[in-house]
Amino acid sequence: MGYHEWKNCIDACLKCASICNHCASSCTQEEDVKMMARCIELDMQCAAICYSAAQLMSMGSSFAQDICRICADICQQCGDECSNHHTQHCQECADACKACAEECRRMTGVAA
Amino acid sequence: MGYHEWKNCIDACLKCASICNHCASSCTQEEDVKMMARCIELDMQCAAICYSAAQLMSMGSSFAQDICRICADICQQCGDECSNHHTQHCQECADACKACAEECRRMTGVAA
Amino acid sequence: MGYHEWKNCIDACLKCASICNHCASSCTQEEDVKMMARCIELDMQCAAICYSAAQLMSMGSSFAQDICRICADICQQCGDECSNHHTQHCQECADACKACAEECRRMTGVAA
Amino acid sequence: MGYHEWKNCIDACLKCASICNHCASSCTQEEDVKMMARCIELDMQCAAICYSAAQLMSMGSSFAQDICRICADICQQCGDECSNHHTQHCQECADACKACAEECRRMTGVAA
Repeated sequence: MGYHEWKNCIDACLKCASICNHCASSCTQEEDVKMMARCIELDMQCAAICYSAAQLMSMGSSFAQDICRICADICQQCGDECSNHHTQHCQECADACKACAEECRRMTGVAA
Repeated sequence: MGYHEWKNCIDACLKCASICNHCASSCTQEEDVKMMARCIELDMQCAAICYSAAQLMSMGSSFAQDICRICADICQQCGDECSNHHTQHCQECADACKACAEECRRMTGVAA
Repeated sequence: MGYHEWKNCIDACLKCASICNHCASSCTQEEDVKMMARCIELDMQCAAICYSAAQLMSMGSSFAQDICRICADICQQCGDECSNHHTQHCQECADACKACAEECRRMTGVAA
Repeated sequence: MGYHEWKNCIDACLKCASICNHCASSCTQEEDVKMMARCIELDMQCAAICYSAAQLMSMGSSFAQDICRICADICQQCGDECSNHHTQHCQECADACKACAEECRRMTGVAA
């Protein structure tokens, strides 16, 4: 297993990582930053895990599934938090996080 | 400027990073690894810079263009090296590197 | 040049990256998050560039000095912003950023 | 829990990541690169997971222990492989990997 077999999950992780970075940065520019505090925190964590999951998958690592299991959990939690906010970046981020959680679960053999 | 304006370049960087990781890892499994040594080295460097360029662009950083300038140079060098090898992963990687170098140059205002 | 010759700069970059992540995350938990918005943004960018500078140096890359030049600039800007805040995490972060900027300048041959 | 409580483990992860990058890059310059192929592969994976474990810990993430569990396993495997080779970079890397595995186990509550 490796890059080509896991391509959908790699793409979902990379999209999610980038959108989380964008969301965190956009949240700091909102009028009510305090309301976005938890979102910023989770975005940062989600971006970090998504990049490393994509890295291990693209390397064809035997640890890729282990990290995708954690990635699914962080993405789910980040997506749930983003869903609470109505800014465009949070809505985009919620979608990307949920799509990534689903791909990670599929890739690890847990029915989504 | 940020995620949406730089999306083509972000996508090119992330694709290039993943394919470089895949290429480096695949190179280690070739019969003649020694011939791939320089390719592995540049793949590792190219993946590192591409991820960080994508990160800074997705954060909307005012330093994004500075890093994309370096990224274009590493991608060019890595793509040139990969072009010398006829394995599928090196050919794919050469294409991804050259596409990424071009996007980085476009994004920094240097005609590609 | 590589890991052993650049060890001081690598260590400064890694320390700075970790403290920036800690500072960003701690800023989100402050009473007045809005006041910390710019600090969070720069912390995120500074962490990203510091990790990749450390990666390229530890790989012995010929592009290490190019990235350390940018790293010095981001660290300086992030350290200046952090200096404005009196929380412990911002003060620690200001110190780490300034030390890292100095090491990056030394490593690139610019007198600190 | 966060940066200060997990500092020993963060430092061990960052040191291990850097030394793995250095080892992978140095392995490509050995006379017998083929003999180092597995070492290069594991170094790349180990560096990726160690950086992200350090990131999540420095952010004070509630997922830090989950990733440190995987990190301990990759470090152990990478350290075992590096132990087989007598170059200086492999011996240094074996030591850094084993120290990191131990810190990760301690941090997750598994007696080292």
